[in-house]
Amino acid sequence: MPGGDAMIEWLSDDLERDIRERRFVTQSAGRRVPGLLWLPHQAPRGLVLLGHGASGHKRMAYVLDVARRLAHEHGLAAAAIDGPVHGDRRADPDAGEMEVFKDFLAAVVERDLVEGMVEDWTHALDALQTVEALAELPVGYWGLSMGTTFGVPFVAQEPRVQAAAMGLMGRSGAVGTSGAVGDRLARDAAALSCPVFFLVQWDDELIPRPAALELFDRIGSKRKTLHANPGRHVEVPNAELQASEAFLAQTLAAS
Amino acid sequence: MPGGDAMIEWLSDDLERDIRERRFVTQSAGRRVPGLLWLPHQAPRGLVLLGHGASGHKRMAYVLDVARRLAHEHGLAAAAIDGPVHGDRRADPDAGEMEVFKDFLAAVVERDLVEGMVEDWTHALDALQTVEALAELPVGYWGLSMGTTFGVPFVAQEPRVQAAAMGLMGRSGAVGTSGAVGDRLARDAAALSCPVFFLVQWDDELIPRPAALELFDRIGSKRKTLHANPGRHVEVPNAELQASEAFLAQTLAAS
Repeated sequence: MPGGDAMIEWLSDDLERDIRERRFVTQSAGRRVPGLLWLPHQAPRGLVLLGHGASGHKRMAYVLDVARRLAHEHGLAAAAIDGPVHGDRRADPDAGEMEVFKDFLAAVVERDLVEGMVEDWTHALDALQTVEALAELPVGYWGLSMGTTFGVPFVAQEPRVQAAAMGLMGRSGAVGTSGAVGDRLARDAAALSCPVFFLVQWDDELIPRPAALELFDRIGSKRKTLHANPGRHVEVPNAELQASEAFLAQTLAAS
Repeated sequence: MPGGDAMIEWLSDDLERDIRERRFVTQSAGRRVPGLLWLPHQAPRGLVLLGHGASGHKRMAYVLDVARRLAHEHGLAAAAIDGPVHGDRRADPDAGEMEVFKDFLAAVVERDLVEGMVEDWTHALDALQTVEALAELPVGYWGLSMGTTFGVPFVAQEPRVQAAAMGLMGRSGAVGTSGAVGDRLARDAAALSCPVFFLVQWDDELIPRPAALELFDRIGSKRKTLHANPGRHVEVPNAELQASEAFLAQTLAAS
C-alpha cells in the first residue's frame, strides 16, 4: 500500500481483531478531510463508504460496528470521513453532541454543505482508489440520517457507487432538509439508479413518516427495497443494520 | 403417523424431492375442509400454516414453492387448506381464476367467510396436532393477500401461532375488505401480539399504498417489520418470499 501519494496522507496503522484500521487525510477543494480505512484480513471483495449521522463522527460506535462486520462477515473494506462541522473537522473536536447537531442544522441552511460533502466523498474515493488493493473493487455507500442527506446527492452523481444502503431521512418536514437541501434531495433521489436498501423507523421523531416514505418513493432505482420497524430515530434494530450490510455485500458481489 | 383419527382423514401420501406430501380432509362445523401437509426429510422443527391468495388454491405454485423451501431449507413442516369457494371446496374445482375471484368477492361481503375460515384453520390445526410428529411444534402462519384477510383474524385469536408472515392487504379501500370485513381486519390487527413480517408491493394495483401502510400501522405486535418493493400485486420478489420464510424459521426457533 503506498503511503506517500499526494492525494492521501496516512497517519496511523493499527491492527485490532484481525482488522487493519488506518487513519488518513485527503484533500478536497482546499479542505483537509480526515478519514479512516478498515481492511479485512483477506484481500477485500469491495469497498463501502460509510457516512455517519449528524452529531456523530467517522468512528462513532455504530459506524465502527458496521465497518467491522463488513470486514469480518463479508470480506469488504470500508472507509469513513468526518462530515462538515463534525469530528476532526471541528476547531473543538470534543464538542458535545447537541452542540455539533445545532452547528450542523445552522450550517446546512446557511451554506452549501451538501455540494461540499459531495466533493469530499468524490475526492476521498479518488484517493482511496490509488491504493492498489482497492483500485478495482466494486464500491458501495452506507449512510443513515445525515449520511443519507449527503449520500443521495453523492451517489446520484457517482457512477462508481453500485449499491447504497440509506434511510432515516425524508423529503420534506424532516430535520435538516428545509429549502434547497430538501429540493436537491428530492431531485437527486430521482436520479439514483443503483440498487438501494432504505431503512425507515416507524416512530421516528425527527423524520415524519410521510416524508420518509416520499423520499423512498422518489428513488429512481429500478431495484429498491424499504424496511420499516417500530421505534424512534436511534432505535434501528441491529438485525436491520446487518440486513443492510448483507444487501451491500450481495449486490456488490453480483456487480 | 396415525391415519384413522376421527378429526383427520388421510387421502394420499407421496414423496417428491425428499419431501412427503399428504392430502387430508378435516371437519370444521359440518364442513369438509381439504388440505395438504408437507413434511421435511428429518423431524420437523416447526409447523407453518399456509394461506393461499384469492383465486388460487392450497397447491398453487407459490404456496408449493414456499412449502418446499420451508421443508428443504429450514426443516419445517407446512400445511395448507383451501379457502372458501376455492380449490376442492368448489362444486366446479376447474373453474377459471377470474370466476373464482368474482365468487370470492361476492361471497366475502354476502356471508361471514372470515369467521368460517377462522374456524376452519382452528380445526385444521387441532387435527394436525393429533399427528405425533407435529403435536408439540411451534406454529407459524404465512399468507399474503386473501391469506392475510383470513390470517389476521385467525392469528389474532390463536395463541398457538407464534410468528406470522403476511401482507399485500390493506385496511380500507383494498379489494375484498369493504364493510364488516375491513372493520374486523383493523380490530384484529390491533389484537395481534406475535412477531409479524409484513410485505407491501409499492405499486400494488389492488391494495392502495395508504391502506397497506395503515394495516401495518395497526398491527399491535411489539415486534413487526415491513418490507416494501416496487412492483404490482403479483410481483413480489422471490428474495422477499425467502426472507419471509427465514423470518418464520428464526422466530419459531427462538420461541
